[in-house]
Amino acid sequence: MPFVAPPALRSGDPVAIVAPSGPFDREAFEAGLALVQRRYTARFTDGLFTRHRYLAGDDARRAAELNQAFADPELKAVFTARGGYGSMRLLAGLKLGAPRLFVGFSDVTAVHGALQAHGVRSLHGPVLTQLGRQPPGAVDRLFGLLESTAPAAPLLNARTVVPGVAEGPLLGGNLSVLTRLLGTRFMPPTRGAVLLLEDVGERPYRLDRMWTHLALAGVFEGLAGIVLGDFTGCEEREADYGSAEVLRSLAQQTGLPCAAGFAIGHGTVNLPVPLGARVRLDATAGRLEFLEALVG
Amino acid sequence: MPFVAPPALRSGDPVAIVAPSGPFDREAFEAGLALVQRRYTARFTDGLFTRHRYLAGDDARRAAELNQAFADPELKAVFTARGGYGSMRLLAGLKLGAPRLFVGFSDVTAVHGALQAHGVRSLHGPVLTQLGRQPPGAVDRLFGLLESTAPAAPLLNARTVVPGVAEGPLLGGNLSVLTRLLGTRFMPPTRGAVLLLEDVGERPYRLDRMWTHLALAGVFEGLAGIVLGDFTGCEEREADYGSAEVLRSLAQQTGLPCAAGFAIGHGTVNLPVPLGARVRLDATAGRLEFLEALVG
Repeated sequence: MPFVAPPALRSGDPVAIVAPSGPFDREAFEAGLALVQRRYTARFTDGLFTRHRYLAGDDARRAAELNQAFADPELKAVFTARGGYGSMRLLAGLKLGAPRLFVGFSDVTAVHGALQAHGVRSLHGPVLTQLGRQPPGAVDRLFGLLESTAPAAPLLNARTVVPGVAEGPLLGGNLSVLTRLLGTRFMPPTRGAVLLLEDVGERPYRLDRMWTHLALAGVFEGLAGIVLGDFTGCEEREADYGSAEVLRSLAQQTGLPCAAGFAIGHGTVNLPVPLGARVRLDATAGRLEFLEALVG
Repeated sequence: MPFVAPPALRSGDPVAIVAPSGPFDREAFEAGLALVQRRYTARFTDGLFTRHRYLAGDDARRAAELNQAFADPELKAVFTARGGYGSMRLLAGLKLGAPRLFVGFSDVTAVHGALQAHGVRSLHGPVLTQLGRQPPGAVDRLFGLLESTAPAAPLLNARTVVPGVAEGPLLGGNLSVLTRLLGTRFMPPTRGAVLLLEDVGERPYRLDRMWTHLALAGVFEGLAGIVLGDFTGCEEREADYGSAEVLRSLAQQTGLPCAAGFAIGHGTVNLPVPLGARVRLDATAGRLEFLEALVG
């Protein structure tokens, strides 16, 4: 079943900024906010800047903010301030209304999972604290994805891990967070899909453990292909092996078409991609083509 | 359905030493081995000392060793050399024969999970590299559990987290590893059980993420109670919150009887407990009683 495309965003539209995960640096946030405001009308409250332990305020605050953003018919999109940790804690009480554009990555892979389990496309791309550091091309690509009903330009020059071609909806995101949805009703329906994975600050054995969890849960059975983004800061000190080597051997065991090194994730450039939209991964050529737009 | 008790071990019995997880320090291993050999006849090969990345040899080696230990009718118990990471990688090919005593904790929580999913009791207790550092009482308790058909002495003086009393089979072990079994056929059947959790070197937000995974997967629905062991080195630097506080608030949300601070896990003392045997947790009194023996 195809995933529903939320309505396209237009310049000037009111959009919500939410912080369902961790607290964040105000300066980095303001830089990203300025870019969003250059094109849309950003709405948020001071509650966004709350801190409770490692969370941007307690669950009640973050849940109310997120559910309100999905419920208010005036708001046309939901941008996230930062990742970190915490959006998982809101899933059980998450109220998804009519299809609504949702933008973010990393910790909010949990929200993406819930959206795709609900049958709706969403945008895997920069959070606000990361957006201000992005090159103009990535920012333009973000606006293009949110506004255009034409499929996005392909991503090129990735490394072949397992040659082959795969087609299916692109699902996934952060490996740590995605695997925390296994065995829950918020896991996106990966059968026939092309799975996107990226991560930050995870030691190689931890990447192995998460990947093995996907394997034991049967995710690779019936999967079409695998897209590996950045695995930033995932090296073990003084080790004679690297995370790329560990991921390569794990990917090879699946036998699925797989390409690595796409500029998606926690690296310098985080190219936005639509989740739930059909893609064509040519792992042999290191190319990811987009067959459907994010919005309709 | 009750979990099957493996046959009791007797002094002099041949036992296997296996390394299904990470490579280990030889000296710490020899200290634990000396204690095992004082009472049983330890069998292992030099393959035990192999290293492949973060693993004690490749999957083929470790799988052959583990499956052989479970298959050989002469061997009466299986001790593990060390945790680390890696036993999960062997689960898909694990061949469990007749009920056989299995001893270990931490990473081999994955093997315990498979055993309990298979309906067999096992021993949560020191790995060999930890055994040599244990006080005599813990070592005697280990031998007692392995050999006696009388239930073990209760564990006392834990802290009440949520008052109440719970009865059921004790299941679980390492939180990180147990949650990696969610959504797989190796997750132990937790309905009606008393869940044991411990961990090492996990930041509070990570403990929260794992716990929230258990919650979203429905593990706390129908669970009887929660036993918290040691959470060693789980503090965040320069934080105004501790792991005990985070765990307490998560446990309170379940409403289940819960006591914390049992000397089980990666602390100085790792008191052996039977998994799959019925226990009575009096969280109000901070006491864990054993209603069944490990062995029959």
